[in-house]
Amino acid sequence: MSDLASLDTPVPVIDLDIVERNLVRMQNYANAHGIALRPHIKTHKLPAFAKRAVELGAVGITCQKLGEAEVMAAAGLDDILISYPLVGAAKARRLVALTALATMRVAIDNPVALATLAQAARDAKAPIGVLVEFDSGQKRTGVVSVAEALTLIAQVKETPGLRFDGLMTYRSTPATASFIQAVKDAGVDLPIVSGGGTPGWDHTHEVAGLTEMRVGTYIYNDRMMVEAGAATLDDCALHVFATVISRPEENRAVIDCGSKTLSSDPMPGGKIPGFGLILDYPDAIIERLTEEHGMVDLSQCEDKPKIGDRLQILPNHVCVVTNLHNDVVVSRGGLVEGVWPVAARGLTR
Amino acid sequence: MSDLASLDTPVPVIDLDIVERNLVRMQNYANAHGIALRPHIKTHKLPAFAKRAVELGAVGITCQKLGEAEVMAAAGLDDILISYPLVGAAKARRLVALTALATMRVAIDNPVALATLAQAARDAKAPIGVLVEFDSGQKRTGVVSVAEALTLIAQVKETPGLRFDGLMTYRSTPATASFIQAVKDAGVDLPIVSGGGTPGWDHTHEVAGLTEMRVGTYIYNDRMMVEAGAATLDDCALHVFATVISRPEENRAVIDCGSKTLSSDPMPGGKIPGFGLILDYPDAIIERLTEEHGMVDLSQCEDKPKIGDRLQILPNHVCVVTNLHNDVVVSRGGLVEGVWPVAARGLTR
Repeated sequence: MSDLASLDTPVPVIDLDIVERNLVRMQNYANAHGIALRPHIKTHKLPAFAKRAVELGAVGITCQKLGEAEVMAAAGLDDILISYPLVGAAKARRLVALTALATMRVAIDNPVALATLAQAARDAKAPIGVLVEFDSGQKRTGVVSVAEALTLIAQVKETPGLRFDGLMTYRSTPATASFIQAVKDAGVDLPIVSGGGTPGWDHTHEVAGLTEMRVGTYIYNDRMMVEAGAATLDDCALHVFATVISRPEENRAVIDCGSKTLSSDPMPGGKIPGFGLILDYPDAIIERLTEEHGMVDLSQCEDKPKIGDRLQILPNHVCVVTNLHNDVVVSRGGLVEGVWPVAARGLTR
Repeated sequence: MSDLASLDTPVPVIDLDIVERNLVRMQNYANAHGIALRPHIKTHKLPAFAKRAVELGAVGITCQKLGEAEVMAAAGLDDILISYPLVGAAKARRLVALTALATMRVAIDNPVALATLAQAARDAKAPIGVLVEFDSGQKRTGVVSVAEALTLIAQVKETPGLRFDGLMTYRSTPATASFIQAVKDAGVDLPIVSGGGTPGWDHTHEVAGLTEMRVGTYIYNDRMMVEAGAATLDDCALHVFATVISRPEENRAVIDCGSKTLSSDPMPGGKIPGFGLILDYPDAIIERLTEEHGMVDLSQCEDKPKIGDRLQILPNHVCVVTNLHNDVVVSRGGLVEGVWPVAARGLTR
């Protein structure tokens, strides 16, 4: 087995020991609080990690897109929530095929997405579970009023082949609990109430009414999660190894990764600069990216990296980084254990 | 052949007629001014388009990374410039292999990258051409002084197996011409002086001393190029077709593409909002992206799209968009002609 220093760069490297620790920590938390864990595969997109999470006790997995679910179902994952409204006949047909492989649930927030599920249900091999998504303040998808939720729930219950399973939201906030309570107060039975988000994961049990948690980023963590207090640097399992390829000026290094390697995702809030944290040079700022170049401001560094030096970079947002790469190197104890294709990368449909 | 309305979304769709027109226009411009055209494949990453550009008269192609060059050389492209400093033994070995397939040139801006080329030259099947990169104001890679350029040129000329071919810069600016002149004034013969950039492409001939132009984005163009005056909306060959999947509020639509489909690249300069232009709803603003959701502000739209409506989106920055997708749909006259794998996507090493 070769060591990490022998890898050509830029390359995303995953520490399997840290992954295992992260998976176990989250499962222990869920177990301790009697919450079902349904991890989101969007971060890793790797069947092996999805299976390991289920082995450890996860009730199933979450996928955002049908394409991800197709990869996971083909790999043997047999309990899948698609936490995303599916709209259109093509999506209905693909959902039908998935019902032959896995227990399928889908979250919806509108009647058109419901019609897609109704269409799928006509040919499905088993009833399709439906969660109604509500907005806890994210202003993304999700109904914004209890009245809308109740109307949609009633429509789901009237639709042959669909089974109303409960509610879903992202992220879990204080607003979450009051919405859940209001729906319950209307006399609706809620077998599942699924909340989400790695930020604040260890407060999930404080949100009254949640039965399930969906988390994705926790498997690797990233600079955003560290800043959000959801992880420490030691909990970060994926780093991009890079090389300094140029030092055109005293205070400018150029590294061999740009937006096609690290993504253009900035740190949220606009206060923390840079497109990643260089572990050995925390005062260096990856201030600008073009597609394949990263421009690093060294003006605050006492020690400055030389051309040819290898740098270990913690990405701002790991979920979009893995999606950029065809494969990832997996390692243990600083040694390469393998190269895994990112099986569900790029599957946005 | 099916029509575009039958495609499942989100999906990048390329209009082959517009591609052809863009390729021909640039070649005609280069011919008219006696400038060699060496298109950059970073935008499309498709051997078929690289070959078509060469058929039309391009002298060869440009690649940013070795991985891209390996795909192109395997497909038969036999004259390749790597416009990027290569650093390290692994890179040297791969460059050696490429010299068996194609005439290879590499741009460098420092002695460490030169040492990598020197190492490759020992086993190379043919001399490796070297361009010395200088900075025309981009503050990326490239030497910043004429003195450094002259030193590096002298070192290249002393290295067995390397052939000094000239200079390279990105982008071409008024500073470019004075740098070139200063190197010439020092008595250096410059067979090739390669400039670059689709923005301002039609002013390339005004930069005295350039013999070659490298352009990439022009093949598809994008919202940035339209704003930069380098293209019109009619010159844009790639659009992402998307579907409205939710309308949680009167003025908020959610579309089925987020940063994993459109990328997080904002418009440069911070003045133009949004992560893409929705052609049929130019007053709609794709104001926020999460990984798979695009939040669209409809408050300025008189007409508002409904759930299930299909939208045609011009991306801000097309080069990073194609890199996100495993394949692209190619079309002509509104009909699907095929689905092509993006052969060199994700090859950042």
